[in-house]
Amino acid sequence: MTYESLKASIRDIPDYPKPGIVFKDITTLLKDKSAFRMAQQALTERYRSVPVDLVAAVEARGFIFGGALALTLGCGFIPLRKPGKLPAESLSEPYALEYGTDEIHMHRDAVLRDQRVLLIDDLLATGGTLSAAARLVEKAGGVVAGIGVVIELAFLEGRHRLRDYDVFAVVTYDSE
Amino acid sequence: MTYESLKASIRDIPDYPKPGIVFKDITTLLKDKSAFRMAQQALTERYRSVPVDLVAAVEARGFIFGGALALTLGCGFIPLRKPGKLPAESLSEPYALEYGTDEIHMHRDAVLRDQRVLLIDDLLATGGTLSAAARLVEKAGGVVAGIGVVIELAFLEGRHRLRDYDVFAVVTYDSE
Repeated sequence: MTYESLKASIRDIPDYPKPGIVFKDITTLLKDKSAFRMAQQALTERYRSVPVDLVAAVEARGFIFGGALALTLGCGFIPLRKPGKLPAESLSEPYALEYGTDEIHMHRDAVLRDQRVLLIDDLLATGGTLSAAARLVEKAGGVVAGIGVVIELAFLEGRHRLRDYDVFAVVTYDSE
Repeated sequence: MTYESLKASIRDIPDYPKPGIVFKDITTLLKDKSAFRMAQQALTERYRSVPVDLVAAVEARGFIFGGALALTLGCGFIPLRKPGKLPAESLSEPYALEYGTDEIHMHRDAVLRDQRVLLIDDLLATGGTLSAAARLVEKAGGVVAGIGVVIELAFLEGRHRLRDYDVFAVVTYDSE
């Protein structure tokens, strides 16, 4: 089954967040109940037979798909958060932004040794955030069971940075 | 059915985010697959027979429960976001913080006139954010079909501020 038809529900926002960038807006997909269900079903089908102990998703849009997927797969859920959001002792990993760096955080007790963790986000662009998320899981002793996203911007070659992992995208854009 | 047993999976963090406050940490509930499923099931049971067109959830933890609930109820999903996060034309509503104010935003085209919108968040404290969320839906011409949260801190009397709405909490704390 192909999910290319979902692209009709994803809105292009030209020059956002800055001139020359075309932002893929998934809020139009989310508010369309058929499109949202189809996108989620694609993730479910892909991971239904993969052994997974926990689904970890990246704040904030990743939570929309990751929480639902954890429930469907019968897993626990781990929020991967921006700095200053988690109340207990946390691990962190930096990742590069265009100018400077940011960090992603996870509670130290979120993952037990050898637990299999599926990483979910809405978008794969350069792969910086998801690469940091994978290092975070491994730092805690977990195993990355896969990386799943709704949208892949393939022309940014994020998959190359994630080449050590199994990466799945529901829909892929080969050019802007 | 009572969901009071879920409290065993919610972690108290004393003196967070500041001295004298006991923070209710749901990351321990989320990573426990049975507890997470039970919390979500409580929301599903409550709203299964309520007419709802859209589920709107408050960034970021509300997305974890709200996305899954929209899928279960067969609805579209609307993210209610902090300033600067939505790419298209948005409506906003201010709400009071202890010091100063913040804003919650929603895309102007998220809700059509008379659509029934269920509001979801993880926590009801003073009710400031959810009250602003309700005003946002009504400003767009929608109808608030209900307000559902996982945790209610009843001693903060947020329900009073939301007295015009039907409010449901999975678990309630009557004192700190």
